[in-house]
Amino acid sequence: MNERRLPPAIECRHRLKVRYGETDQMGIVYHTNYLVWFHEARDALLSALGMDIVSLEQEGYRFPLVDVGCRYLHPARYGDEIDIRVRLLPELVARMQFDFEARNRRTARLLSTGSCLSVMTDRSGRLLLRLPETILTCLRRAAGNLPVDAAGSPP
Amino acid sequence: MNERRLPPAIECRHRLKVRYGETDQMGIVYHTNYLVWFHEARDALLSALGMDIVSLEQEGYRFPLVDVGCRYLHPARYGDEIDIRVRLLPELVARMQFDFEARNRRTARLLSTGSCLSVMTDRSGRLLLRLPETILTCLRRAAGNLPVDAAGSPP
Amino acid sequence: MNERRLPPAIECRHRLKVRYGETDQMGIVYHTNYLVWFHEARDALLSALGMDIVSLEQEGYRFPLVDVGCRYLHPARYGDEIDIRVRLLPELVARMQFDFEARNRRTARLLSTGSCLSVMTDRSGRLLLRLPETILTCLRRAAGNLPVDAAGSPP
Amino acid sequence: MNERRLPPAIECRHRLKVRYGETDQMGIVYHTNYLVWFHEARDALLSALGMDIVSLEQEGYRFPLVDVGCRYLHPARYGDEIDIRVRLLPELVARMQFDFEARNRRTARLLSTGSCLSVMTDRSGRLLLRLPETILTCLRRAAGNLPVDAAGSPP
Repeated sequence: MNERRLPPAIECRHRLKVRYGETDQMGIVYHTNYLVWFHEARDALLSALGMDIVSLEQEGYRFPLVDVGCRYLHPARYGDEIDIRVRLLPELVARMQFDFEARNRRTARLLSTGSCLSVMTDRSGRLLLRLPETILTCLRRAAGNLPVDAAGSPP
Repeated sequence: MNERRLPPAIECRHRLKVRYGETDQMGIVYHTNYLVWFHEARDALLSALGMDIVSLEQEGYRFPLVDVGCRYLHPARYGDEIDIRVRLLPELVARMQFDFEARNRRTARLLSTGSCLSVMTDRSGRLLLRLPETILTCLRRAAGNLPVDAAGSPP
Repeated sequence: MNERRLPPAIECRHRLKVRYGETDQMGIVYHTNYLVWFHEARDALLSALGMDIVSLEQEGYRFPLVDVGCRYLHPARYGDEIDIRVRLLPELVARMQFDFEARNRRTARLLSTGSCLSVMTDRSGRLLLRLPETILTCLRRAAGNLPVDAAGSPP
Repeated sequence: MNERRLPPAIECRHRLKVRYGETDQMGIVYHTNYLVWFHEARDALLSALGMDIVSLEQEGYRFPLVDVGCRYLHPARYGDEIDIRVRLLPELVARMQFDFEARNRRTARLLSTGSCLSVMTDRSGRLLLRLPETILTCLRRAAGNLPVDAAGSPP
């Protein structure tokens, strides 16, 4: 049996409220803040999976981003409550691909979508090839909380 | 003769220095700051073309972003001098497509590449279909500063 | 009887979690972020009092800051949960004085203290002399939720 | 002769241009950005004195802020060119007190004033009592570029 079978996609939701300083003079949220929110949602997901970025950094792992993208459909405004849906698409190689949706919580309107790809390196910046066992364990445990069918079958 | 012939690509360079607050605890520049720099370079280009964003906003034009993307090749660090090359690909429709390269000025190493697409709307957020004549004039004048061949032939 | 009697100090608490991008290369929260947090806490207080900054801005009021200060006692770090205590000291004149404390939620350690003073202007930036009646009403209603003694006696 | 005689106040100017993302929905620069600019100006001053923050951090020194303050007199707006005057008041103890003025370059109008106090610690966060000799040397060399009278007499 393949011990390194991939767990299925894992997702969670994260909620936040637009800060005053996140707006610009167009009266809407400045575009880079969506990426900050996506990062926050991503960390919330990893944390929900039992991965502690701080501990992993202390063990010498780094997670630099290699690619981000974001589409803007409707503007968010100061005070809006935002719902972020974040989804992790597990891979065996040492990288993490996330995608995101930001919605206005009150109207459910889709505001923006995005994605990012993060690799793993050691302290000196050398690329890791495979996910460390501790991280794979977290991903498998997360998959274990899903219905058996979902967790048990290859993606 | 086609009065609305497109001017060729227009580019310029912009230089900046990494601020302390632009780093994160990985010891490198936090990823969203590249997009802030690209925005600064884009405004420098428009300004060099004689387009004043402030005046255009006062006339009722808005330039919301609809899409950004960025790839990260090598990290920038605090104090690094960064060279941004920005290129505008003129179109007749009311949108502006830019692409970007950020390099470490001392080593000439390519740090990241990016792109963004901005549309134009009126004050109420309604999409414009064609670039206003004032902007087209700026683009043509910019093209006029290029060698006749470059400026005179369709892209 | 003095209709314009001052309500007593009003305070509330606001909780947040340190974002990755709020750190710098010292591995601690970059100093300006505390002021962003204080702003968020201040807006949460005003909102709890029934003051809607967006509506007030639409009515033509502006609340520019005229003074901020912050002392840093212990660093906050990525992932820390932060408790902000914010206190509004009501005045009859059209300005709002807030003070702040930020604590690490887990350890209760005091991380920083701060204050800010905000005035009110109309749309054109002209200083208001007295708080608008709508705002005074919010402050009095907030005071009305306090024990009669506290609400009824001058501070 | 007192080898540890204090050099006089040292100042320099730093210029920058307001970025789009530094504005907020009031149409003016968001208040924390002045502190970011002051930090940039402070680093420019230290760099002009021959102090390289990066090298000093690599040697194990840290310069956490313990106190900042800022007064806002007139708003800065997108695209404004800003002149920062920064002044360092040297002390023998291991702390650096700076004060700042931000002016609109075109109108020379004073926009804001500020100050900050930074201490020095070692890598583990323990407070240093006296400025390291390398830093004192930089300060004295800077003073040496002043007229002999100014450099030779106590401030």
